[in-house]
Order: sequence, then structure tokens, then C-alpha cells
Amino acid sequence: MKTELSTFYLDIIETDVCQLSENDSRHAIKVLRFKKNDLISVVNGKGIFGKGQIIEANPKKTKIKIIQTKKSKMPTYLGLAFCPLKSNERNSFIIEKATEIGVTDFYPIISQNSERRKWNETKYEKILIASLKQTGRHWLPNIHGIETYNSFISREELPNLKFLAHCKDRLKLNLKKLVDSSKHQIIVIGPEGDFTLEEIDKAVTNNFKMISLGENRLRTETACIVSLSVMKL
Amino acid sequence: MKTELSTFYLDIIETDVCQLSENDSRHAIKVLRFKKNDLISVVNGKGIFGKGQIIEANPKKTKIKIIQTKKSKMPTYLGLAFCPLKSNERNSFIIEKATEIGVTDFYPIISQNSERRKWNETKYEKILIASLKQTGRHWLPNIHGIETYNSFISREELPNLKFLAHCKDRLKLNLKKLVDSSKHQIIVIGPEGDFTLEEIDKAVTNNFKMISLGENRLRTETACIVSLSVMKL
Repeated sequence: MKTELSTFYLDIIETDVCQLSENDSRHAIKVLRFKKNDLISVVNGKGIFGKGQIIEANPKKTKIKIIQTKKSKMPTYLGLAFCPLKSNERNSFIIEKATEIGVTDFYPIISQNSERRKWNETKYEKILIASLKQTGRHWLPNIHGIETYNSFISREELPNLKFLAHCKDRLKLNLKKLVDSSKHQIIVIGPEGDFTLEEIDKAVTNNFKMISLGENRLRTETACIVSLSVMKL
Repeated sequence: MKTELSTFYLDIIETDVCQLSENDSRHAIKVLRFKKNDLISVVNGKGIFGKGQIIEANPKKTKIKIIQTKKSKMPTYLGLAFCPLKSNERNSFIIEKATEIGVTDFYPIISQNSERRKWNETKYEKILIASLKQTGRHWLPNIHGIETYNSFISREELPNLKFLAHCKDRLKLNLKKLVDSSKHQIIVIGPEGDFTLEEIDKAVTNNFKMISLGENRLRTETACIVSLSVMKL
């Protein structure tokens, strides 16, 4: 029997007997060589995790008996709003790394200088699940539907700790001195062409704090990860 | 005449007339459509930067007259030691993002659980130069030759602020409370299989501080970027 448990994602694990997806069944039986009676870890991305035992080692539909579940606390809200980039690879990178760091909510937005105005959030579900398993998190982040900058910036349910990073020559604060990982926080990162002055003014009016990420000009995806690292740690 | 200056990398810019590499010449003339008398920015990766004027717009060997140079201060030492990963893509990612954030010295090391024991640092020069131009930095980072963990960990010239991140169940400190971006700092990130207890003990003996990067298990490349972000900002 294997001693180190591999984690599998299941939509629902509150019932007694569950079935792995076809992909996961093949991975469990063909790649990881799990056999009947082996134990696995399971997680449903909505806070439930636990242990299961393989009762049918079928490489297309492996059946699992859930033998123990626990509920984990919802993580502290950490939001990232960003303008999707032209490159799918760099968008995937943002989703993957931000999930590892601990983002709970993604807001793809369209700003005046956006390179991309269409976005299919369902494409990123696999990355979310892989990163969830990688990090040992129990809650999948939400990817909100794409919306315009103006609609996003005036959302009323955003937390008090709202930050926006830009490269324009305006008064900016040191992010490190403002963050508090025990509180709800959100950061907005601009497109490659930066936010316009009009957009920046709108954020100020909506009580966003303007922050700087240091002297080096960072690529959009780097700015996302650097700011989240400072907010989370 | 173009008003926004593109930056080109030249090994030596202290002489009066320089020549762009064949690649850069093609890029300048064929892609960016620079013409004779246009101005460009130049940087040599050793602190010298300035402006040049195109005096011969040849798509294979463009000639530049240097019309102004400045010398910029060497940035504060920020070291990253890591075990190169199997995936070249993820190694490239570490080099690119760490350069953007501001690493000055890379130390590829071989530890007991290293996935990779060979490494060709010259492969990464293009990435260093591209990131340098991206960020507006004037100094290229150094990539030291690959060495064993034991040889690295006892190097005498390392700074006082030496950190090592691992996932073992030992006393670890909060990185955020220890960092000081005005001082020389270095962080050591383990391989996917983590450092061994023996390796960790050796680091402690050599006055490294053991640090944690939070509850989430981060991939190696994410751990590099997260820790550097916190150290730099």
C-alpha cells in the first residue's frame, strides 16, 4: 500500500462512494499504479477534503469509498484584477502563480489600453485545480466574468484595502507599508500600455490607494506576482 | 524622428562609434524601421547607459554614434541560490522574473535531491539582456558557475542576511520580519524534493536563517519569486 497520498479533485465528496473522472482514473491506475484498497487524498475545491479508499481500480472510472472528510475554513479574501494579455501562456502563468500564492478572486478587466477584450475563464479551470493540488489548498479561487474597468472600479463589495499599481508620474505609496494579510485585500494591475490618467483618477475617487512596485519596470505578469507576494506574506 | 527611444544592448559603449549585433541591426532597421539620424538608447550591462544616433542604417551592421553616456550606481547585492529544475522553461522563468525583480547574483547549486546536475549558464544570456532592457536596469546580473550545495553554503563572501527556505518541520522565521532591501541579502531555495535534514543543519551551522513562505506549498520557481519580491520591496 502506498504511504504518501496523492490528491484527487472531486466535485462532490460528501457522498459515500465517488467516481474519479476519466482522466484522473487513468492517471491513478495507469501512471501512479494504484490498486484496490489503496488510500488517496481527495479535495472538492469548496473546503471539503479527506481520505478515500479505492474500491474499484478501473482505469476509466475508478470508484472511491470516502472514509474521512474534514471542512477547512475559507481563506482570507485576496483579489487580483488584471487586464488579460495577448499571450495565453502569460495569462496561464498569472492564474497558476497567483493561485499558488493564495488569490481567492480573479477579476479580468478591460481597460482603455487593454490588448485583449475577450476572455474565456473556463479555459483556466485545469490550471486552478492543478495549482490547488500542488499547494494543498482546499478552496478553488473564483474567476469572475470579464468586465470593463469602469464597472469593476466602482464595485461596492470590494474590501477597504484596495490598491492599484501604475507607472505614471503621480504620488504613489509603498505597498509594503499598507498591506495586512489578515484583512481582505485587492490589487489592480494595469495593461502593458498602463492605465490612463482618467482611469487612475477614477480609482482615486473610488478610494483605491495608488502604489509603486519599485524602480524596475515589471512586465504585467511579474507585477501581479510581486504585489501578491508582498500582500500575502 | 521617433520620440520614444528603444533600448539596445552593446558590450562596449565607451567608444565613439559602435555597431549593433546582426540580430539587433535587423530588429532596429527591419522591425522598428529606424532610419539614419534616429536616436536610440544604449546600455552595456555594466552600468553605462546613454543615447546614440544611427549613422548607418544597415540591417546587418547598424552603426551608432554615441552622443551621451552616464554611469549608474551598482545595485544593492541580491542573491538567489537555487537547484536548477529539469524543465528549461521553468529555469528560464526563474532567470527572467528574478532579473526583473532585481537579483544581482544567481548561484545554481547541486543538492542531494537535485533533479539536474548539469547547467549551461551561457544559455540564459539572452534572457538576462531582454529582462535588463525590459526593466530599465543598467547592470546585468552574474550567473555563477554551478557548484555543490556544500561548497556554496560555506562560501565566505556571502552577506550577513542569508536565508534558506525549506518545507521540513523545523523552527522557521517569518521572512518579512527579517528582510532589509537596503542591505546585501541572499535566499536559498530547495529542489522539488526539498533539502535534507543534513543539508539544513549545515546551513544553520553557517549562520543561514531558516524561513517559511507561508502555508501553501509553492513550486520551486514560485518560491524563488515570492521570496525575492518580499526581500526587494
